[in-house]
Amino acid sequence: MKQSYFEIHPWALATHKFNDTTNLVTESLTSIGNGYMGMRGNFEEGYSGKSLKGTYIAGVWFPDKTRVGWWKNGYPKYFGKVINAVDFISVKITIDGHAIDLATTPYEDYYQQLNMKNGILTRSYTVVLSDTKTRINFSRFLSIKTKELAVQQIEFEQIAGNSTITVESQLDGTITNQDTNYEETFWEPITSTIEQNALFLSLKTKANPFGTERFTVSALTDLQLTVNASPQLKKVNDLLLSDTREFSLQEGTNASLLKRTVIVTSRNIPDSEHQTTAKKILADTANNFADLEQEQTAAWLKRWATADIEINGDDAAQQSIRFNLFELFSTYYGEDSRLNIGPKGFTGEKYGGATYWDTEAYAVPFYLGVSEPKVTRNLLLYRYLQLPQAKHNAAEQGLAGALYPMVTFNGIESHNEWEITFEEIHRNGAMAYAIYNYTNYTGDDSYLAKEGLEVLVEISRFWADRVHYSKRKKQYMIHGVTGPNEYENNVNNNWYTNYLARWVLTYTKHAYETYGAQSSVDVSSKELAKWQDIIEHMYLPADSELGIFVQHDTFLDKDIRPVTSLPSKDLPLNQHWSWDKILRSPFIKQADVLQGIYFFGDQFSFEEKKRNFDFYEPLTVHESSLSPSIHSIIASEIGEYDKAIEMYNRTARLDLDNYNHDTDDGLHITSMTGTWLTIVQGFAGMRTWNGELSFAPFLPHNWSSYSFHINYRGRTLQVIVSSIVTIKLVVGETLPIKLYDKNIDLTDTIKVSLK
Amino acid sequence: MKQSYFEIHPWALATHKFNDTTNLVTESLTSIGNGYMGMRGNFEEGYSGKSLKGTYIAGVWFPDKTRVGWWKNGYPKYFGKVINAVDFISVKITIDGHAIDLATTPYEDYYQQLNMKNGILTRSYTVVLSDTKTRINFSRFLSIKTKELAVQQIEFEQIAGNSTITVESQLDGTITNQDTNYEETFWEPITSTIEQNALFLSLKTKANPFGTERFTVSALTDLQLTVNASPQLKKVNDLLLSDTREFSLQEGTNASLLKRTVIVTSRNIPDSEHQTTAKKILADTANNFADLEQEQTAAWLKRWATADIEINGDDAAQQSIRFNLFELFSTYYGEDSRLNIGPKGFTGEKYGGATYWDTEAYAVPFYLGVSEPKVTRNLLLYRYLQLPQAKHNAAEQGLAGALYPMVTFNGIESHNEWEITFEEIHRNGAMAYAIYNYTNYTGDDSYLAKEGLEVLVEISRFWADRVHYSKRKKQYMIHGVTGPNEYENNVNNNWYTNYLARWVLTYTKHAYETYGAQSSVDVSSKELAKWQDIIEHMYLPADSELGIFVQHDTFLDKDIRPVTSLPSKDLPLNQHWSWDKILRSPFIKQADVLQGIYFFGDQFSFEEKKRNFDFYEPLTVHESSLSPSIHSIIASEIGEYDKAIEMYNRTARLDLDNYNHDTDDGLHITSMTGTWLTIVQGFAGMRTWNGELSFAPFLPHNWSSYSFHINYRGRTLQVIVSSIVTIKLVVGETLPIKLYDKNIDLTDTIKVSLK
Repeated sequence: MKQSYFEIHPWALATHKFNDTTNLVTESLTSIGNGYMGMRGNFEEGYSGKSLKGTYIAGVWFPDKTRVGWWKNGYPKYFGKVINAVDFISVKITIDGHAIDLATTPYEDYYQQLNMKNGILTRSYTVVLSDTKTRINFSRFLSIKTKELAVQQIEFEQIAGNSTITVESQLDGTITNQDTNYEETFWEPITSTIEQNALFLSLKTKANPFGTERFTVSALTDLQLTVNASPQLKKVNDLLLSDTREFSLQEGTNASLLKRTVIVTSRNIPDSEHQTTAKKILADTANNFADLEQEQTAAWLKRWATADIEINGDDAAQQSIRFNLFELFSTYYGEDSRLNIGPKGFTGEKYGGATYWDTEAYAVPFYLGVSEPKVTRNLLLYRYLQLPQAKHNAAEQGLAGALYPMVTFNGIESHNEWEITFEEIHRNGAMAYAIYNYTNYTGDDSYLAKEGLEVLVEISRFWADRVHYSKRKKQYMIHGVTGPNEYENNVNNNWYTNYLARWVLTYTKHAYETYGAQSSVDVSSKELAKWQDIIEHMYLPADSELGIFVQHDTFLDKDIRPVTSLPSKDLPLNQHWSWDKILRSPFIKQADVLQGIYFFGDQFSFEEKKRNFDFYEPLTVHESSLSPSIHSIIASEIGEYDKAIEMYNRTARLDLDNYNHDTDDGLHITSMTGTWLTIVQGFAGMRTWNGELSFAPFLPHNWSSYSFHINYRGRTLQVIVSSIVTIKLVVGETLPIKLYDKNIDLTDTIKVSLK
Repeated sequence: MKQSYFEIHPWALATHKFNDTTNLVTESLTSIGNGYMGMRGNFEEGYSGKSLKGTYIAGVWFPDKTRVGWWKNGYPKYFGKVINAVDFISVKITIDGHAIDLATTPYEDYYQQLNMKNGILTRSYTVVLSDTKTRINFSRFLSIKTKELAVQQIEFEQIAGNSTITVESQLDGTITNQDTNYEETFWEPITSTIEQNALFLSLKTKANPFGTERFTVSALTDLQLTVNASPQLKKVNDLLLSDTREFSLQEGTNASLLKRTVIVTSRNIPDSEHQTTAKKILADTANNFADLEQEQTAAWLKRWATADIEINGDDAAQQSIRFNLFELFSTYYGEDSRLNIGPKGFTGEKYGGATYWDTEAYAVPFYLGVSEPKVTRNLLLYRYLQLPQAKHNAAEQGLAGALYPMVTFNGIESHNEWEITFEEIHRNGAMAYAIYNYTNYTGDDSYLAKEGLEVLVEISRFWADRVHYSKRKKQYMIHGVTGPNEYENNVNNNWYTNYLARWVLTYTKHAYETYGAQSSVDVSSKELAKWQDIIEHMYLPADSELGIFVQHDTFLDKDIRPVTSLPSKDLPLNQHWSWDKILRSPFIKQADVLQGIYFFGDQFSFEEKKRNFDFYEPLTVHESSLSPSIHSIIASEIGEYDKAIEMYNRTARLDLDNYNHDTDDGLHITSMTGTWLTIVQGFAGMRTWNGELSFAPFLPHNWSSYSFHINYRGRTLQVIVSSIVTIKLVVGETLPIKLYDKNIDLTDTIKVSLK
């Protein structure tokens, strides 16, 4: 089942072989990004084999008309599409008239490496023509220091014979998406100029009937060579510019090319200033690769210093955790509160939309641990800035308050399945949970007191309107929802949703009582009384005989049987069973009741956790990339270590080993946080309930040790787990912590035996 | 709310005014058909105002690629589209160079009439030009005697001045559908010839990627004038032929044109024989309008003789029942067992697909009453012929047996909402019920014994596989269904579906025990035992406190409140509420529990019927055209006469008064049967349980009398209800019947007082 595309290496993805049949997967795996922009591992020189070209600019998208078989009242009018932006990495190469293309050109000594330490992607091979051999080394990265900057170096080493080499650097706006309807294109040309050694191309997204924001993206690129070659700059058409150089290379000599590109967008700079701004940024940039590389390495080093997880004894596990962290940071590092973490990041076009509840449920706890609080706060601010749109979404459904979208770019819901858009409303609770999580983790209540309270009150108003009172049962209920388990739709009283809604009302009421007086938010006493009534009379399905919470009203009437009862040919179910059969089966896509137990771990006993885990996990097919991590964490807590490790392996190398056979269209970015959570909250048992930091580590049997840093309330801690558990206070003041249920004041380093 | 488009008249739709703002509605209402083909009331001379052109040939369709936002396993690959066929009624007219078009031409004395007695549509007006006045009378019909024949007459009467008149008769294959995606067309030219006075055009549906049947439709048309005018026949292009005549008309003189068109299709005749066959049919046809009209009137008279319902005291009611009967017979009269009754008949393109469960539930009891048993038998044979496709549909869902489609042309499911296609499986029970209905009504068990048994066994195999056993409740359940109430989706244990499934198994088992030995069908004893186990342990949700059957598992947990609690601005809900709000509301689209009580009226007590009606009807918004009739019938039975009449009015003039504001895109053909059922089974209380015919009539307060004929087991009966109830045996042998619970041997005429 598992297939490895790159050699096992603690800090790199590297391969000595190019496999043309798996190029789509390796393109995904060698994606790089700097939060501002990113791209798949497409080849600079072009490639005529199977390839998904992808260059993406964060926050730049296009609204695509909603297409459904039958329209239903309330459907969003458009679907937000991640769109391919100007291709600026292209440098076509010919050697003695032969166009270099790995699909057709004879070559030897191939090597590709994504260096995760500094985010530099390199690739080299030796072109073997009849009388000559030329080695080409490509390097590229997207600058962490200057977000608008992309740097490429191409080195030529003439090994045998003499050659005439032509390089043609391009800015190519004739791009489209592979999933377009009827070959539509998204861009129209604004400006294209050629001067000195620079190409400048400015493109704008086409007008759309939905009145959403249009984006201008401009690229300025220059080219420097270490050999003499007069530039031939050319405007091929309004969307395509090129800069061609020709030079000769004698046997034993070298040449090197440096291509620097600056990308500016209307998201940050008015269109009229694009050219001058880009020029200024380029002028302020070092013009040699070595200096630029050094800056880049230093910037990544700083990130790794706090974020790295070191694993000894299992290089595959080591590689996978670093790969997950690397791609996460490449996608988002919290610089821009208008951005979020798309499900595919900069690695593909699938799904569309930039923002899912994955961010609040999975990414927030990760960024809290590995980065400054500001990063997480920006994720919260993103939702605060979209509060008006969330109120619009609720109103579209005829409901009060705010409903955050399932999928969006601009805050307006843009997904078009009623069972998701209209019904998977638990997402609204995750928004509130993230506020709690930030406040509780950081101890900083300033967001909660102001922006957070505004968001919480509107979310609570939604829930208070969305519940209904069952006169028969004398309890509040929530009918017609889809829980996190998307293998059931339109169920009644999903335990997770009901529990979460009740918690939101409780938390909001408490926050309002604490911070309401000083805020602009106004909640009437009648409204508060209504919330209290719902809190006291919310229906939560449970089964006393089994001692479990019940996923939803009629779940236990199903033909309950474990996944192990299925023939293996039926798995994954989503590829083999018709949708109706999946829906009425007892099989669960991802944590549902257990998601609630994970979120509110301080509110359930060990026995409750164990009974629910032992009941639900055997029914779970984990066909969502978000599933294994939550199960691993709970399995760790209840001492089911083998299951915890099985689930870790399933989440950690999901893309590296192409576990679900779908890495070709991009990486599973948001679920990558799960790998980190699995180690830190799972294996190391870190908890932060009620402002108290605690650990209860165990060591997977085939690891000799693991260690990581975390940020917590102004401190940096290092945790090292081998036969000894070591906790170091690296930065900051004394901190009371709990280790294996023992209270300790952490002042320097403590060591205890592994339990 | 109500708007009348035509004058009240017992046998006609007539108007003295042309209203250009409602032309789409009046085009729908003046649709004519002869079961083989049909058309909307488009104008022969063309019309540049709002119009939906529509000419349709029964059984001719095109598969349109399924379009959904998110693909789900098991979705049908294509959707069957009713397509516009060659427009053959077109006769463009110019008078002294002025092209006649009611949107621009000055005219007076407009009159339009659809004569329901003989199916002839006429229209006349006087064209008023500067110096001349010309009256034009259009007549057309589709022949009942010769199904391939369409007859048109246009008479010109020169009232003032002298004019030169040009008529241009066309065969126009350049037609498309208004709802096409990206202006796609469906037809390609095969042959077009011009000879003597005839045009011949042969078109074939385009190739499609789904490999479904392609259709060739050919039209042969000739033109005769009572004045001298030499023909100018012209091939405008491969898809458009024309025949132009020019003549002068002196004041006080007349001219008349007869256009006869013969339509043949590959459904009946090989392509190579189209032209000769069409010529032969045309040659065998009378070539004067008077003779043709007489044949047509005689043919309709025969239909009306048994089918008419006469109402005295309420002309609006009289008009509406005849209109419903007229349009039903125009759509289907049972001649071809490969055809069925589309939701819009020949009156529009909406919905697509030819066949819904409406046929078995609503049309079968109607055709049993008004026509020969052969008509209904052909409807049953239609499903028998599609049994292989029904088995395919079940297999697509991973289930045994046969699942009849929700929407289809060829037996393959072609609807693309999972909550309908995959889950509205009660339709499969209606197929079995129709077999029972036919057998019980006619007393003819020959269909049941052979074809019927094959169908029943495969349907039963589906149900036996589709139920699951709840170990907890120790009962069989059916999860994940949509009942007749489509304002709920994906519910568990819909009472109607469970009850129907159990009945199907019972009925099939009994039929197999009776007829199995002589048939080719083989059911093992193990399978029979399994069916028996399901029959004995099927779960049927009921509430003992309320004394009702429960629509589905959690229905009673809803916020139960009557429709009268809604502000009127919220109605109809389907135009004002978002889909999720509708789904979780207690409001019911159409009879659900009550549909079961209607189907199995002999299995429930008066009190059970009353309690369920009194509980469910107040929750019902009747936003399906199929809803009011069933409610009217049950209301009649339990003595709630005001409600019965209210519901009658709602069903009878649904289209005539454009009740739901959607008659512009076509008529609600299948629900028209409901009007007949409401009178015969409702007001007259006709029942046929267990082979016993019974009546229990009442008279709506504003009617002075009503009467109708029914066919029953070789007899024709006439029922007349005034202050006296008269039942006449018109044709056939003595028949034991029951009248108001009194057993009577009907030999001639009986009269009793109205109760």
